Amino acid sequence: MYREEIKLLDCSIRDGGLINKWQFSDEFVRTTVDQLNQAGVDYIEVGYKASKHQFDPKEYGKWRFCFDEDIRKIADGIDLKSKLSTMVDIGRVEDEDILPRLESPFSMIRIACYCKDIVKAIELGKLIMDRGYELSINIMAVSTNTEREIDEGLNDLSKTDFPLVYVVDSFGNMYCEDVTFLVKKYRDALPGKTIGIHTHNNRQLAFSNSIQAIIDGANFVDSSVYGIGRGPGNTCTELMLTFLQNPKYKLRPALKLIQEQYLPLREKIEWGYIIPFMITGTLNEHPRVAIAQRKTPEKDDYVKFWDTLTTAECEDE
Amino acid sequence: MYREEIKLLDCSIRDGGLINKWQFSDEFVRTTVDQLNQAGVDYIEVGYKASKHQFDPKEYGKWRFCFDEDIRKIADGIDLKSKLSTMVDIGRVEDEDILPRLESPFSMIRIACYCKDIVKAIELGKLIMDRGYELSINIMAVSTNTEREIDEGLNDLSKTDFPLVYVVDSFGNMYCEDVTFLVKKYRDALPGKTIGIHTHNNRQLAFSNSIQAIIDGANFVDSSVYGIGRGPGNTCTELMLTFLQNPKYKLRPALKLIQEQYLPLREKIEWGYIIPFMITGTLNEHPRVAIAQRKTPEKDDYVKFWDTLTTAECEDE
Repeated sequence: MYREEIKLLDCSIRDGGLINKWQFSDEFVRTTVDQLNQAGVDYIEVGYKASKHQFDPKEYGKWRFCFDEDIRKIADGIDLKSKLSTMVDIGRVEDEDILPRLESPFSMIRIACYCKDIVKAIELGKLIMDRGYELSINIMAVSTNTEREIDEGLNDLSKTDFPLVYVVDSFGNMYCEDVTFLVKKYRDALPGKTIGIHTHNNRQLAFSNSIQAIIDGANFVDSSVYGIGRGPGNTCTELMLTFLQNPKYKLRPALKLIQEQYLPLREKIEWGYIIPFMITGTLNEHPRVAIAQRKTPEKDDYVKFWDTLTTAECEDE
Repeated sequence: MYREEIKLLDCSIRDGGLINKWQFSDEFVRTTVDQLNQAGVDYIEVGYKASKHQFDPKEYGKWRFCFDEDIRKIADGIDLKSKLSTMVDIGRVEDEDILPRLESPFSMIRIACYCKDIVKAIELGKLIMDRGYELSINIMAVSTNTEREIDEGLNDLSKTDFPLVYVVDSFGNMYCEDVTFLVKKYRDALPGKTIGIHTHNNRQLAFSNSIQAIIDGANFVDSSVYGIGRGPGNTCTELMLTFLQNPKYKLRPALKLIQEQYLPLREKIEWGYIIPFMITGTLNEHPRVAIAQRKTPEKDDYVKFWDTLTTAECEDE
């Protein structure tokens, strides 16, 4: 697939940090940025920006905070053609954390929010745009929203000048038909805005759902190296690099990054196709129950996990 | 997705055996058959049928030969609702190996052939149908055939009374658009015949391509437990069981099978998302070069593997 407008955003450090509380070494992050820059990735997301009052720096690594001086250090000396991005959660960042664009290493700030918080996201988004950044709104977990809720949120967003809104399959639940339905809905509701896609691989559909979104007109796509990310992880950056035919993209640096950094890391922390996450994806549930189960001696008792999540169903009225 | 006509065929033992020369214990195969039967899988393929003159039984396990007495033994005492199937390769089976259906534990025999061997497959297929079996023709590696070759093969098949022909993505190369193109082509060329889909997971597209084929009208789908199969493996049976909404299908027995048999096996033999197979899939090459590389000390030197397969490109004219 070639379409000049398509942009690839790698979120390895940001989404991968959900596994290990962002305890990546400087060298790991620096190598990631360096190789992804060589691979031609358009945006590299190096973490969440959060207030130091919200998280304990003893427990969480630097990439949970993305202080500008830490980011400058890891990018120092790299001839960076890729842009750097960071993500903020509603309520976990303070105005003072967001410097004017010209004083910051970041080009883009992305807001992650639930559908119910879109009005708050709009308020924060205006501040981010006023300070000179590119902006995206990533509406999480829409597989759990009613169509009415989504329509209402999109209607609010349609009144802004925000350029980019993401379809996010947080629970890894969607089929290609769901992706098609939502991308069409977003495009119809948000004329003139770019639509992005962020998928999870619970059911081995992350890459194919990203492809489907692109076929349907999405022009911003998230991925991570070797799929790193909480639980099943994300669409693999290396796979997207094989799919996107723009000559600026190169697979080789991503392969080097996998063999030298991500494969050794994968032996220390787990992500990928893991049955309890397949089950939460299938049931359209938050992965937290699977994460909890993976920390117990019964981590591979899939039948028990299945029974626990499904036998209460009839009592739910 | 619910469509009454859709049949699910599990090929765990047959395709998985390509990894370990079919050295599965009787108990492993018996448990597989028992649990898949409980899961409601329509057909269970327990190996290849081959002449004992073609392979050394000291090197290859029972499921390379599928002698009828071995199959009866593992199915003995199981209240089998699933049908048993076996696969034959052109030139590796002799007429005498194919007993009359009523004397055999198998309901279906599937012929694997390349496009160029379709006329041979038709000859063998007639013998198999004459002896009373259900039959399918699985045309392998069509991602490497020209459209003219495929059209010619389908034209030959259109003149037979064979009921079932498979689109097979042997190299794990296809995108959803390729699947749609081929399923439509097969359906148009073979009116009245059922179309099947067999995918490989080199690029994490096996499950989504199977779904796409079903959306496009395929009514027979192959899968394997936990995706077991050579290299990247196949569409996962457990994923298909979540997708197919026919109430006869049950996920729980497949989960039990994974945790008790396939997860322990996966720690001894490898399959799954492995970068050299991603590379062969992307390049539309036979996985044999990746299989060879995985046996060397450089098995995880992905950059070298990539360079080896791509730097000769300009000399290929």
